This record gives sequence, structure tokens and C-alpha cells, in this order.
Amino acid sequence: MTTNNEQSPGDRLQSLRVGILGLGLMGGSLALALRGRVATLVAIERQADIRQIARRQGIVDIAVERLADAPPIDLLVLAAPVRVILDSLTHLPEARPAGCAVLDLGSTKRAVVAAMNALPPSFAALGGHPMCGKETSGLAAAAADLYRDQAFFLCPTRHTTPELEVIALALVAAIGARPVFLDAGTHDEAVATVSHLPAILSAALMRVAADERLWPISASGFRDASRLAGSDPRMMLDILVTNREAVLDALAVYEAELAAVRAALETRNEDDLVDWLAAAQVSYAAYRRFKSAERLLSPVPPDDSPAGKIA
Amino acid sequence: MTTNNEQSPGDRLQSLRVGILGLGLMGGSLALALRGRVATLVAIERQADIRQIARRQGIVDIAVERLADAPPIDLLVLAAPVRVILDSLTHLPEARPAGCAVLDLGSTKRAVVAAMNALPPSFAALGGHPMCGKETSGLAAAAADLYRDQAFFLCPTRHTTPELEVIALALVAAIGARPVFLDAGTHDEAVATVSHLPAILSAALMRVAADERLWPISASGFRDASRLAGSDPRMMLDILVTNREAVLDALAVYEAELAAVRAALETRNEDDLVDWLAAAQVSYAAYRRFKSAERLLSPVPPDDSPAGKIA
Repeated sequence: MTTNNEQSPGDRLQSLRVGILGLGLMGGSLALALRGRVATLVAIERQADIRQIARRQGIVDIAVERLADAPPIDLLVLAAPVRVILDSLTHLPEARPAGCAVLDLGSTKRAVVAAMNALPPSFAALGGHPMCGKETSGLAAAAADLYRDQAFFLCPTRHTTPELEVIALALVAAIGARPVFLDAGTHDEAVATVSHLPAILSAALMRVAADERLWPISASGFRDASRLAGSDPRMMLDILVTNREAVLDALAVYEAELAAVRAALETRNEDDLVDWLAAAQVSYAAYRRFKSAERLLSPVPPDDSPAGKIA
Repeated sequence: MTTNNEQSPGDRLQSLRVGILGLGLMGGSLALALRGRVATLVAIERQADIRQIARRQGIVDIAVERLADAPPIDLLVLAAPVRVILDSLTHLPEARPAGCAVLDLGSTKRAVVAAMNALPPSFAALGGHPMCGKETSGLAAAAADLYRDQAFFLCPTRHTTPELEVIALALVAAIGARPVFLDAGTHDEAVATVSHLPAILSAALMRVAADERLWPISASGFRDASRLAGSDPRMMLDILVTNREAVLDALAVYEAELAAVRAALETRNEDDLVDWLAAAQVSYAAYRRFKSAERLLSPVPPDDSPAGKIA
């Protein structure tokens, strides 16, 4: 996986002491994907049983309860619900007085980037959001290939140094993900519609279909439409609270769509109904074509993005 | 696939002349799955190019435009949008004056069973609904394994004979599906929530996310939540119109769920938000456990169901 070329980003990782705060699905999967590719893996995890499992199974080299107890770390990855990330950033200067590089894996980025901007100059910081997940959470659900072929959003902050960009891109490459740079505001607006809204819709569907007598009748359509209802409620709460306005906006647009189809059905307006359905089908077909083309493209970032520096 | 045992249901199929009205995704997949397992496969299909493809590729033995032009058929399977099925049932006595056995594959069953009940006594009739599909439609999307391991609902009518039940169960077994008998009313109420509502939700989501600038940001969560937006609009229109009241009821319950989560988010009521999300997650976990257990069960129907007659 690594070469003897001293300039390769892989080598930058090999000498890196990486700390991962939170060994849930995301942090645990990151540890599994980075195992053997970094100098040291240190877990910062509150739950004693998770620390024990991580140490025994060799998922990390060292596991400590508090960040202040951790040995020297070059790159700290915050892999927790968004508000735990925000809290960690607040306490970071006292826990690591010498500073370090910081990357996070939080699902919303505006609040995180603002908190990173407030760090003292001894810290380098970059916002991150790997667009992957599972309908199950926790270390038990972690997998080394969770990030493979998935988009990994990177949102620059005031403290994003060229050095940290190189390290972050090496890390993203090492776990098989595809780096995409964008600003935190654009990120949060977009994910409100394509990620947070769908999670709400799936949860609402599961609540409506909570009666187990319905389940024998359900098939793959229901399975896919309900999948995001399995998301961790604590993670989702932090997402909704830290992206509240954008989620409420997306929800309002969505509710208007439901009101439109309801009105057409109530009034038996078949022309409106078929137009409404057909426009969705056309968009869906275009979206699928886009995704098929996207898969064929190499993960090389555009020249004008900071990722160009890696080449 | 068939045995030499003269009593086997497979033998009943081997001597059967089967007509399939409509060679779309469902009818085409049925033809592919039945190929070589019945005496003759006759397609009744309005589109000349589809008839030509089906004949050339040997998907069926005979393809005709109108039912009246078809040779003698023992079992006619109506594989079309629900209102085309209803229309076919209305004209069936004139097209097949000698009568035959009829099964349909329509997505709603109350209206179909009512139309079947109105057939003259020379017809045997059974409502059917295989719970499978794809986000693409048409013969080009047909696959021999579409029905494999999927539930195939069977809704008895006044004209359901023991002979037709045996034939229908043999057909369901031959295509690898799992027969489930239930009445048309129960079926339509249940699928309004677990199938028709999710199709509306996916279409509404795709309409909200129609801006292609959002698509690079979207990941597997959006893909799964939007998949049913690819459903054929004409098929969906017939479903919504023939199951209108049940769909409107399910939609109203769903809209109340969205209103609840919106209110909690607007008022920043975090206790309500996490309760709302957690209940969905608990239901989802129970639903997934149910489905895992269901997969382990053999497809043997309960003793008190008509399917017991096959044993």
C-alpha cells in the first residue's frame, strides 16, 4: 500500500500519530481502515468496554478515556455526534496545549467550521464529512471498507494549512474515499435536502408503519424507503439542531409537494397526478444517469481545488 | 425442475396453455420465468415492436395484438396497470366466450376482485399481486428471477375454484415466489402504507431534489430513499386512483408525523425530537429482525390456508 518514494502522501501517513475521538461506526471504521498505515492509532473513547474491545482486537494501539490523557498526537480526528465535536473543540486548547492538526467527521459543517475558526493559532483545522453510514451504529457495525468509493467532503477553515490539506488528502486516499472540497454553507444547504430530509422521511415512514401486522406485506420498496430510520437518534438530533434552518426549509418544500399530490388525488385530477409522478420519474432517471457517469470518473479533483497540490 | 410424478403441481403447469396480457416488466419477467415450464406461452401485447422482440428472442411462443386473436388459453394472466386489467376483465366474456382461468398481477386488489366477481360462471378467477418490481419498467428490464423469494399475494374471488388455486400455487412455486393468501380489503389497506405511500414519498423527494447541483453531494441514503421515484407513472396513477381512500388515509397519518417533527424542531424541543427519532429507530430494528426471521422460514403456507391443498 505504501511505496519507498519519500514524497508520497502514503509516507506522510506512515509517520503520523493519529488520534480518533469516538470509536463508534465512523471512528471505528476509520481505525480499521487506517490500521497499519499510520505510526500510532490512539483512541479517545469514554466507554470503558469499547476501549477494552478496541485494544484487545488490536483496532487501535492505545485507548484512553480523556484527550488530556493521550500521548502526543499529530492529527486528531473528531468522530462523534456534531455537538460532541463542538464541545471537544471548545476544550481542545486546554486538553492539547501544544496544539495539533484537527479533522472532524461531523454531518453538519457550519457550526464545526465556526468552532474551528475560533481555535488558537497552534491548531491546524479542517472540517470533514464522509458521506457514508449504515442503518446500524456503534463499533460492532464498523467496517474497514465503509469509506471506500464514497465522497469525503472537506470544508476549509481559517486554520487550514497546506500541510493539513496534504495529510487529509492522504488519509482520504488511504481509506479509499473521494475528496470533494466545498464551503461549509453550501455543504449544509445541500445535505439538508439530500441527507437530513431523507432521514426524517424514513423515520416518519417507520412510525406510520410501526404496526408489525404490516411487515409481512412489505417488500424491498419499503425496506429501502425506511432504511435511514435506523440512524442513531443522538447523531440525528445533533444534525437537526445544528442544521435547523436548512432542514426546516427543505421540510417546508417537501410538505408542499405532499400537499400538491394530496390535492390532485382528492380532486381526482388525473392530469396533475400523472404530471407530478412523471416529473419525478424524469428527474430520477437523470439522477441515475448522473451517478452512473460519476462512478466512471476517476477521483482526481479539479485543478483549481486545493487537492491539486497532491498531484 | 419438473418431476415424473404425475400428481406434482409442476406437471399441471407442463400441460398448461398460458396467456400473458401485457409484456412489460411484470409480464415479461413472468414469461422468462415460465419459459419451458408450460405447454405454450402466448403474449397479448398491443405494441408491435414488443411482440416482435418477444417472438424473436423466444420469450413467448406466440404473440398477438388482441385477446380475441389468441389461440385457446387455459390460464390468462393479466399483467398490466390496474385499470387496463379492469378494462380487460370487462371485455373478457366477449373476447373468450368459452371462458378460461384468470389470474392478475395488479398492484391493488379490491377493484380487480370486484370485477372478477362480475365475470360469468365460465370463468375461474383469482386476484394476484407479486410484491416485487424495479425502478425501471418495460420488457427490457424484465428478468427471470424478478419473483424469486418475493411474496405473491393471492386474493380469492367468488370464482376462485380449487383447480385454479392449485394451478396458481404451481405457477407461484415455479417462479420461486412465496404465496400469501389474504382478502383484497386487507391487502389494499396494508399496501397503501407499505408500498403506495413510500412511492409517493420517493417521488416527492426526487421533485425536491431535482436540481442536478445537489446530486454530487448525494450518497446511498438518498439513492435508497428516492428509488421508488423511478416507478412507471401510468402504473402509479392506476394504483393511486384505485386505492384512493386508503392512500389518502395513509398520507394524512404521514403528514401528521411530519407536522410533529416540524413543531419539535421549530420550538427546539429536543426531548420530543429524540423521542420521535428513537421510536422510529426501535420500530426499524424490530422490523429488520422480523424480516430476518421471515427469511429463515420455509415458504410452506399455514395448514388452514388453501395452499395446504398442494401438500
